[in-house]
Amino acid sequence: MSRYFTEEGSVEAVNSRMGKDVTPRLAAVMASLVSHLHAFAKAVHLTQEEWEYGIEFLTRAGQKCSDERQEFILLSDTLGLSMLVDAINNRRPMGATENTVLGPFYVRGAPVRQMGDTICLDGKGESCRFEGTVIDLHGTPIEGARLDVWSDNAEGFYDVQQPEIQPKWNNRGVFVTGPDGRYDFVGIKPVSYPIPYDGPVGQMLGHLGRHPYRPAHMHYLVTAPGFQKLVTHTFVGDDPYLESDTVFGVKKSLVAPFEKLPQGSTLWRSPFDFLLTPTS
Amino acid sequence: MSRYFTEEGSVEAVNSRMGKDVTPRLAAVMASLVSHLHAFAKAVHLTQEEWEYGIEFLTRAGQKCSDERQEFILLSDTLGLSMLVDAINNRRPMGATENTVLGPFYVRGAPVRQMGDTICLDGKGESCRFEGTVIDLHGTPIEGARLDVWSDNAEGFYDVQQPEIQPKWNNRGVFVTGPDGRYDFVGIKPVSYPIPYDGPVGQMLGHLGRHPYRPAHMHYLVTAPGFQKLVTHTFVGDDPYLESDTVFGVKKSLVAPFEKLPQGSTLWRSPFDFLLTPTS
Ligand SMILES: [Fe+2]
Ligand SMILES: [Fe+2]
Repeated sequence: MSRYFTEEGSVEAVNSRMGKDVTPRLAAVMASLVSHLHAFAKAVHLTQEEWEYGIEFLTRAGQKCSDERQEFILLSDTLGLSMLVDAINNRRPMGATENTVLGPFYVRGAPVRQMGDTICLDGKGESCRFEGTVIDLHGTPIEGARLDVWSDNAEGFYDVQQPEIQPKWNNRGVFVTGPDGRYDFVGIKPVSYPIPYDGPVGQMLGHLGRHPYRPAHMHYLVTAPGFQKLVTHTFVGDDPYLESDTVFGVKKSLVAPFEKLPQGSTLWRSPFDFLLTPTS
Repeated sequence: MSRYFTEEGSVEAVNSRMGKDVTPRLAAVMASLVSHLHAFAKAVHLTQEEWEYGIEFLTRAGQKCSDERQEFILLSDTLGLSMLVDAINNRRPMGATENTVLGPFYVRGAPVRQMGDTICLDGKGESCRFEGTVIDLHGTPIEGARLDVWSDNAEGFYDVQQPEIQPKWNNRGVFVTGPDGRYDFVGIKPVSYPIPYDGPVGQMLGHLGRHPYRPAHMHYLVTAPGFQKLVTHTFVGDDPYLESDTVFGVKKSLVAPFEKLPQGSTLWRSPFDFLLTPTS
């Protein structure tokens, strides 16, 4: 076969060019990428003007990136790619708590707190008790499970987004379970918030008739020796954006009850058990 | 069906989110893009680390872009996408001269010269006479065809890459055919050159065991009233990179003879006829 480019043989023309010493995994990933990229262009009969728009879009996205902003992650999130990669790499047995995306606001090193403590330091929002048990697939409580939790504040901002306004580690904390596997802490009923939409991705959402909001959620990173790392959220069941999360993070099993308490200083209670999957 | 995200239903989850007022073309292009993007991730079982590498690669590419550098076009070129889009949008009847990519070095406004003039202003390189006829599909000469031509200099650089070293419009010119459809001008036998490879795309080529070179070529932009715009090159037939053009620009029909002349000040002669396709 000629090594020259033809429309029909475009994929082979590119992929046959790879050297002999390319690692097998890189060769497989790149060959598939080229194949799907070309199939897309052929399927829609991509015009020159559309190609130019795509180049220009990627360029604007790249130039929006900074130490505080990652426009390509937003792009991946809003096209469902981030959730897909998360799903592919975290298939779990029936009943085990499902993963969802980590998100950009996780910060390592939050203070370890005592069970029952509050993580809300700015005094804003409707207080909520989060409680439950960390168990294995047989229902046995797991001792020494570490729950790293974080949420936005009542105005929809994480502490790291407002370092000069919010107290450090506001709405964040680490809790370690005892022999009963129980956890409980007081935070706020989280609120929905938009992803940053003042860039090309926000513009894309606008063109697609989509809003930039995420339904309210509490983030969890749960680890325990012998178990797979669980990165997840629990979602507030009555959130108006629950079925239209702009990053597709919601899974049915992660929608948690938020019950209004009849009395006391804590307004809400959200019970949720975490079922961890063994590592092998 | 639930609107929540599942691995199996990932494409539908994303595409069903589009609003009702999205233009049909945008909806079709985005739906296909999401479908092929997800199919790629599923086909290779893309890992979290590979996804992160991809995000980081795009970010570096974006930050390499400037007024003088377009890393995303280089990426598209080296993945064969630019040539594919060119091919899809410029299907021509048998016998008509084929298109190839415009490339980043075209400059509008080159001086119109007389037939027989030289375009090489820096006196470097092996001189070559380019000549032929612009004809229609029946072989009838086309009067008033405008040939905008450009090549690198003997060191492999276009004038715009070395504005302080090369004379303005070096190795560029516009020629307009008379009633006989003939063109001829003196340039140099072009030399092969690398695309800019000091960025992420150059690194990618290295990982793939590919070189960054383009085989030597003369660029042509040929227009005539009533005919499709022809963007093409002619390639020097004995170039070592002819079968491995890093942007896949070579088509068999565009490889031109370069004949060594026995005497005179001009060392080479390259005959090539351009067969234009009517606009409708
Ligand atoms: Fe969040
Ligand atoms: Fe060129």
